[in-house]
Amino acid sequence: LNETGKTDSGAAVIIASKKPFLQVLGGGTTARPPIWLMRQAGRYLPEYRATRARAGSFLDLCYNPELAIEVTLQPIRRFGFDAAILFSDIMVVPHALGQKVWFEEGVGPRLEPVTAADELDRLSYDGFEQVLGPVYQTVAGIARELDDSTALIGFAGAPWTVASYMVEGGGSRDFAKAKAWAYGDPEGFQRLIDLLVEATVRYLSAQVEAGAEALQLFDSWAGALPERALRRWCLAPAMEIVRRVKQQHPSVPIILFPRGAGMLYRDFALESGADALSLDTMVPLAWARDRVQSEVVVQGNLDPILLVTGGEALRRGVLDILETLGSGPLVFNLGAGIVPSADPQHVADLVELVRGWRA
Amino acid sequence: LNETGKTDSGAAVIIASKKPFLQVLGGGTTARPPIWLMRQAGRYLPEYRATRARAGSFLDLCYNPELAIEVTLQPIRRFGFDAAILFSDIMVVPHALGQKVWFEEGVGPRLEPVTAADELDRLSYDGFEQVLGPVYQTVAGIARELDDSTALIGFAGAPWTVASYMVEGGGSRDFAKAKAWAYGDPEGFQRLIDLLVEATVRYLSAQVEAGAEALQLFDSWAGALPERALRRWCLAPAMEIVRRVKQQHPSVPIILFPRGAGMLYRDFALESGADALSLDTMVPLAWARDRVQSEVVVQGNLDPILLVTGGEALRRGVLDILETLGSGPLVFNLGAGIVPSADPQHVADLVELVRGWRA
Repeated sequence: LNETGKTDSGAAVIIASKKPFLQVLGGGTTARPPIWLMRQAGRYLPEYRATRARAGSFLDLCYNPELAIEVTLQPIRRFGFDAAILFSDIMVVPHALGQKVWFEEGVGPRLEPVTAADELDRLSYDGFEQVLGPVYQTVAGIARELDDSTALIGFAGAPWTVASYMVEGGGSRDFAKAKAWAYGDPEGFQRLIDLLVEATVRYLSAQVEAGAEALQLFDSWAGALPERALRRWCLAPAMEIVRRVKQQHPSVPIILFPRGAGMLYRDFALESGADALSLDTMVPLAWARDRVQSEVVVQGNLDPILLVTGGEALRRGVLDILETLGSGPLVFNLGAGIVPSADPQHVADLVELVRGWRA
Repeated sequence: LNETGKTDSGAAVIIASKKPFLQVLGGGTTARPPIWLMRQAGRYLPEYRATRARAGSFLDLCYNPELAIEVTLQPIRRFGFDAAILFSDIMVVPHALGQKVWFEEGVGPRLEPVTAADELDRLSYDGFEQVLGPVYQTVAGIARELDDSTALIGFAGAPWTVASYMVEGGGSRDFAKAKAWAYGDPEGFQRLIDLLVEATVRYLSAQVEAGAEALQLFDSWAGALPERALRRWCLAPAMEIVRRVKQQHPSVPIILFPRGAGMLYRDFALESGADALSLDTMVPLAWARDRVQSEVVVQGNLDPILLVTGGEALRRGVLDILETLGSGPLVFNLGAGIVPSADPQHVADLVELVRGWRA
């Protein structure tokens, strides 16, 4: 039994952790819910913008351990969150598989699209570990810096979401190309998904080996798919990733974020094998309590725009979540990432509200 | 009792209609579900692109009765849909209230934003009827052209969706400005919503008076709001619009499309007073049958990307819907608008599949 809980004895080790975030994910209880926020290291923080200015491109920042460690730790120093999350981007996986990826200011990721199964040969593991090496160095560096009470989360994009960027060549409104491939040539699209399952398992496992204590899988565009497609392209790959990562690292909790899955969150709770589900802003709280939190730990789901407004609306939103979900296993979080116009003072207010609840 | 069913005797008149679309909305049965498609007049049709090229801006097309009638009728001629829907845009309402609106090619609507309650004075009804006059002429012109079996649908954007464009100045990914206003100054934002409820009631009623036989209210961005906000800014205004339009025109069926409402579709079915709900692609079919179709007529919800791929995936998707929802009151439709890359031959195949079902 070691301090970081990396043995095969599983959940018992996690519950024994001094870190409230890991205690809750391991099935234990805490006096109040732990809190961290999606995209907590980001443009809303002046210190992030200052560090960002020292890097070249956005991808350069992701691959620069010194700067990536720094921006990961900034919100921990400022707000004392219960977990730090690796600063990186879900696009590093297709990039490491050999796809051309770049970021356009104000637009987001751009990729040289892969549009059919016969183009999958362009992707390979030849440079995979070399490209991702700096990310693992970043994880190890963050792990060294965190104190006894703060957990370290590694993450990756889920196959469907990553595939959608790979096929569309960037963000999309209607996912016409990715869906047309998935619907028109499901066997070929399955090859892309299988490739991403394999790459994601390798990537997440390596993060654990470098020091990540929990993992989150982001399926940001799950909500674009009808039920039948969502089961095949989101739920089934998530199950497979959870199963294979847990085979190697049974004590590391895994959080899934199938954003927009609506009532299918229930199916993820029952079938995915994940320890926790991150709820988007649209999931009604009472339903989540009765149908999701009854099965797994829930995380979420404050509307990030309440960190723009603050005040009474923020207080009401936080209390709604705490009063409905706070008595079961809950990691307090947002329902989507912080937006650049969020006010850091409102983030501090939020942390105080959660920490002061029932205190 | 007149041919078009515009009397106060209500549902009985609609059921007596020769138009299958109105029969189903009026609570009657038909041998097979009627069909029309959201954005059926659009860029995927070569004849639309030819007519579009004759208009100046996109708004010019909306305000040109001759051309707007023509593009409305093109898909009726080609596919024989059971309903025509007025060719227009939801942005005509803010435009008619005096907001500056224009369309950027490849971007969508752009507006000079209204960002706070004290700017609402810039909006007024002074030019409302004059700006919208050509739209009513278009409705009347379409009504004259349609045969005995094809119904005419009028439409408007729902207050939350229209307000989001008015506040953001166009489309948005996170709705940060619109939500920040709604959360931070709910009384002020309520004034904007109330103004849009009033404007929408006037606009829809005038469409009925010009010849529209059914109405659809599009709340395209309902899914951006958490439950509490969705109830206040989407469900409550929809109830009010339905109530007030039905006061004036009790026999005209109203379809709501609260896109992304997820399990709150059930609440719209129970509380809104609408005759039908249009389901987005994400609503699981069996759930819709048990929880929505048990209360109201349902419309939907094929993924429009299946009209890009066609083939077996299209056939399977259509049969899924027919087999699950086809025995209750159903209007066959898409779960979102047709995309420009849809193949008109696949649309023809779709119509044949629906018409041939159980035949």
